[in-house]
Amino acid sequence: MDSKLMNEIISDIKLRQERSLMPIPAGVSNRHVHLTKKDFTALFGPGCEPTLYRKIVQPGFYACNEKVDIETPKGKFSGVRMIGPCRDYTQIEISMSDARVLGLNPPIRDSGKIENSPGIKLRGPAGEIDCGKGVIISKRHIHFSPSDAKRFKIEDQQIVRVLCSPGTDKETIFESVLCRVSDKYALEFHLDTDEANAAAVKTGDSVFII
Amino acid sequence: MDSKLMNEIISDIKLRQERSLMPIPAGVSNRHVHLTKKDFTALFGPGCEPTLYRKIVQPGFYACNEKVDIETPKGKFSGVRMIGPCRDYTQIEISMSDARVLGLNPPIRDSGKIENSPGIKLRGPAGEIDCGKGVIISKRHIHFSPSDAKRFKIEDQQIVRVLCSPGTDKETIFESVLCRVSDKYALEFHLDTDEANAAAVKTGDSVFII
Repeated sequence: MDSKLMNEIISDIKLRQERSLMPIPAGVSNRHVHLTKKDFTALFGPGCEPTLYRKIVQPGFYACNEKVDIETPKGKFSGVRMIGPCRDYTQIEISMSDARVLGLNPPIRDSGKIENSPGIKLRGPAGEIDCGKGVIISKRHIHFSPSDAKRFKIEDQQIVRVLCSPGTDKETIFESVLCRVSDKYALEFHLDTDEANAAAVKTGDSVFII
Repeated sequence: MDSKLMNEIISDIKLRQERSLMPIPAGVSNRHVHLTKKDFTALFGPGCEPTLYRKIVQPGFYACNEKVDIETPKGKFSGVRMIGPCRDYTQIEISMSDARVLGLNPPIRDSGKIENSPGIKLRGPAGEIDCGKGVIISKRHIHFSPSDAKRFKIEDQQIVRVLCSPGTDKETIFESVLCRVSDKYALEFHLDTDEANAAAVKTGDSVFII
């Protein structure tokens, strides 16, 4: 065999073996909303601001005390938590199970890519709004800080496979996991409640790139 | 390299490649109950028999018109369908999401293995019963007829991995899938609603042993 090719194969295998030993904490995302300041005001009233319920792993973001109902003619979920702070687009992230209840067929997307996604009615204590778009199923992804990306030898936008719950009855490999690198991020694998329950993963569990 | 070992490796790779091209239809199991005749009578009344709603893929089994409510102090699901005919143990099959709603921690088991599993209250139109045991999360499995098992070169109780939704954003590999071979079975991969939604699999979709 060509020795250059052989060396490439061996170093690729070695990289994969090293990576597969480095744990990544999982973060399970329940259905949630991001809101613009304008939509927040329409739902919660003039002069209101989102308030801290709990910090989340990603720096600067937090689960808010504020919750909304999300509704279609087919179905409804009450008490869907906002993730703050306000951002410059309103986005509703749900699981595929949720989508079935609501009778929607949202695209599987990275956060922020809401063009041509279905809309939904949002209801808060001060009013309701009809979003014309914004409902997505979040694509499985890993957040990396630049130093973690370097440690894992991962590039921004790289696609990897992630092993969950090895050695158990729920052992699962999620393919097509998007890597996102930013100095705003902390190391975390984000999956939704369907994926978490399918693989028996809880927030804080270790998963592995294989 | 040892040429006997090399031949074994090559024939194993060839077998896996052949298998990976042979589609297996998926069957998504929503939460459901199996009932003994005695429990059926307690729930639906003396003289009643389960009635056909729809045949399912496994020969001799059928979804019934009869439904029950299942309930714990923590939560409840209404209208949980019975799969007929009656069998000699009562078993309640739920997903991990369902288990969270009900506040239960059921074992992940093959059908029929209900020792040391949690109980639940069942309510029908004619009465209610407290099952002392019987709630399980069904272990992912594939049913094979003996001729299909031969075609796939699979033995009863073999553990395999199953690829779902290849080439999509929800591509997923389920590890630890149990193969069950019987002349009572038809070829079908059974997964629950969490697993189906995590991998965007619908009943009738093709999956692959890899």
